[in-house]
Amino acid sequence: MGGDYAPSEIVKGAVLAAEKYDVEIILAGPVDTMATELAKNNGSRLPVRCVEAKEFIREDEPSAVSTYIRPGTSIAVAAKTVRAGEAEAMVSAGPTAALVASSLRYLGMIDGIERPAIGGALATFAPNTVLMDCGVNVDCKPYHLLTFAIMGSIYAKKLLNIANPTVALLNIGAEENKGNRLVQESYSLLQKSGLNFIGNVEGNEILAGKANVIVCDGFVGNILFKFCEGGFSVVDKWLKNKLKRFPLPGLLSRLSKDLTSLTSMPESAGSHLIWGVDGITLKIHGASRAPQVADKIAQAKLVVDMDVLGSLKSELASIKSKLKS
Amino acid sequence: MGGDYAPSEIVKGAVLAAEKYDVEIILAGPVDTMATELAKNNGSRLPVRCVEAKEFIREDEPSAVSTYIRPGTSIAVAAKTVRAGEAEAMVSAGPTAALVASSLRYLGMIDGIERPAIGGALATFAPNTVLMDCGVNVDCKPYHLLTFAIMGSIYAKKLLNIANPTVALLNIGAEENKGNRLVQESYSLLQKSGLNFIGNVEGNEILAGKANVIVCDGFVGNILFKFCEGGFSVVDKWLKNKLKRFPLPGLLSRLSKDLTSLTSMPESAGSHLIWGVDGITLKIHGASRAPQVADKIAQAKLVVDMDVLGSLKSELASIKSKLKS
Repeated sequence: MGGDYAPSEIVKGAVLAAEKYDVEIILAGPVDTMATELAKNNGSRLPVRCVEAKEFIREDEPSAVSTYIRPGTSIAVAAKTVRAGEAEAMVSAGPTAALVASSLRYLGMIDGIERPAIGGALATFAPNTVLMDCGVNVDCKPYHLLTFAIMGSIYAKKLLNIANPTVALLNIGAEENKGNRLVQESYSLLQKSGLNFIGNVEGNEILAGKANVIVCDGFVGNILFKFCEGGFSVVDKWLKNKLKRFPLPGLLSRLSKDLTSLTSMPESAGSHLIWGVDGITLKIHGASRAPQVADKIAQAKLVVDMDVLGSLKSELASIKSKLKS
Repeated sequence: MGGDYAPSEIVKGAVLAAEKYDVEIILAGPVDTMATELAKNNGSRLPVRCVEAKEFIREDEPSAVSTYIRPGTSIAVAAKTVRAGEAEAMVSAGPTAALVASSLRYLGMIDGIERPAIGGALATFAPNTVLMDCGVNVDCKPYHLLTFAIMGSIYAKKLLNIANPTVALLNIGAEENKGNRLVQESYSLLQKSGLNFIGNVEGNEILAGKANVIVCDGFVGNILFKFCEGGFSVVDKWLKNKLKRFPLPGLLSRLSKDLTSLTSMPESAGSHLIWGVDGITLKIHGASRAPQVADKIAQAKLVVDMDVLGSLKSELASIKSKLKS
């Protein structure tokens, strides 16, 4: 029931995924409505079933709170389905805050991880560099940055196929003693972790591919992430203006694919996952149509197939024992 | 004696400035060396004189400390010349840390400002948006952010000719209660300040010109500032690669001016000033040649002529009395 085009595009996307990706779908929502939508999409021939959830989160309500108090909403029911082991992953186009809140409430955190986080690549130019956290945690402790580094490493290993991902700390200078208290204290923790820690990277090195995982608190990460969204759009607009002046017919249209890639943030299964939650939870953009919904379901399947959760838990255990000794 | 091409290009630039900009120059350095350089540039016909400083800061020494303990260095002598009222401003191509340290030691801070700061515009697209602080202060209190806002306002008013500059707080959401503790606590202080405070801006709005002054701590500011330096270079390189494929002779060379402007950070008198110091101190890029040195001297003159220091002090006094009442 989440997203701008729910339930029709969500159900359509689920049917598409069941057709294409060898997955079994459970739809959480009002069963009558779901059944009607399923019939429209000729869904009865496929492994798609419904689970009753009469309520849903409205876009304008304080979603974190309502998730806690309303276990009958579609997003709560979906999370409970995962907790019960009936589903291996959940995807939702509802508000991110509601998704995080319902994951926290019904799935809980992985033992040893205190804060959920979001990671992602910032630009077409640097698809193998993941920034973590991109915006969930604004006031962090060094231990949180360590767990972001661990989650980022698993992201790079499992979902970007990088064997021994390099990890760096986002800072304002190369030396260990640079930066604010948080990063100064995080440095030695990362150094002792056994991760492939290469030290600090500065702002100008983020897009240069110097590290596969760049660790920062969610305040800095959110600002950078949004800066890229906004910044490259400004460059794109400026560029189109400049190129208009050139008398080569079709120049702009021939460049349009490149220009689109300039303003697209690279997306992957890892960039939609709510990291740190003890269950697989993927967010879908609220404006998604059926094909994007199906894509995200395929990404959730990839996360399950790659055993991202299991890998994260064992990496975490190994690092914690290393730090204790 | 500071910078990659000292003393020859510095002296040459000073002579150039004395010729072009109706300024009187005092050179701080070994008088013999200065005199030789002056003679080479036919400087005796101009209002350029020397003041003895036998030592200077080496590039590889911990400059902050050495400035404190070595009052005979050229940068210390220059600062003392300003303190004594013999000079109205100082410019230096030496290490920024040495410039800040000597300013703190010999000029001190303006009463009511606890931390020096650096401000600047981030991109060609947003020349009227100043980010402050760009990197001096890594762990800040709300009062520091207030003083950055005041300094940024004077920057915009006096040096960008903006009558009533808008001030915004860099944050991860639009609402007052968003963000980390620092920005949450800074919000109400800015609201009560009497500055033209328009609330929060997010990362994607930085280059959109939404505010004339964007306030942040120096950790975030430094990362963003360097990200722009590095990021636009990556875009430039990527773009040149794409454009090479097009069979329009001269396309790249005809775009080269635009591409250069893409990767240039807008510079102004305000972006070279060490803000908050009780005296006018401008940094020159270490790799500057004579024309750039002369430019910076002209900018220092502008800062003097516009009474930036006096305006800052009276704005500060007025805001402090407003906050008390």
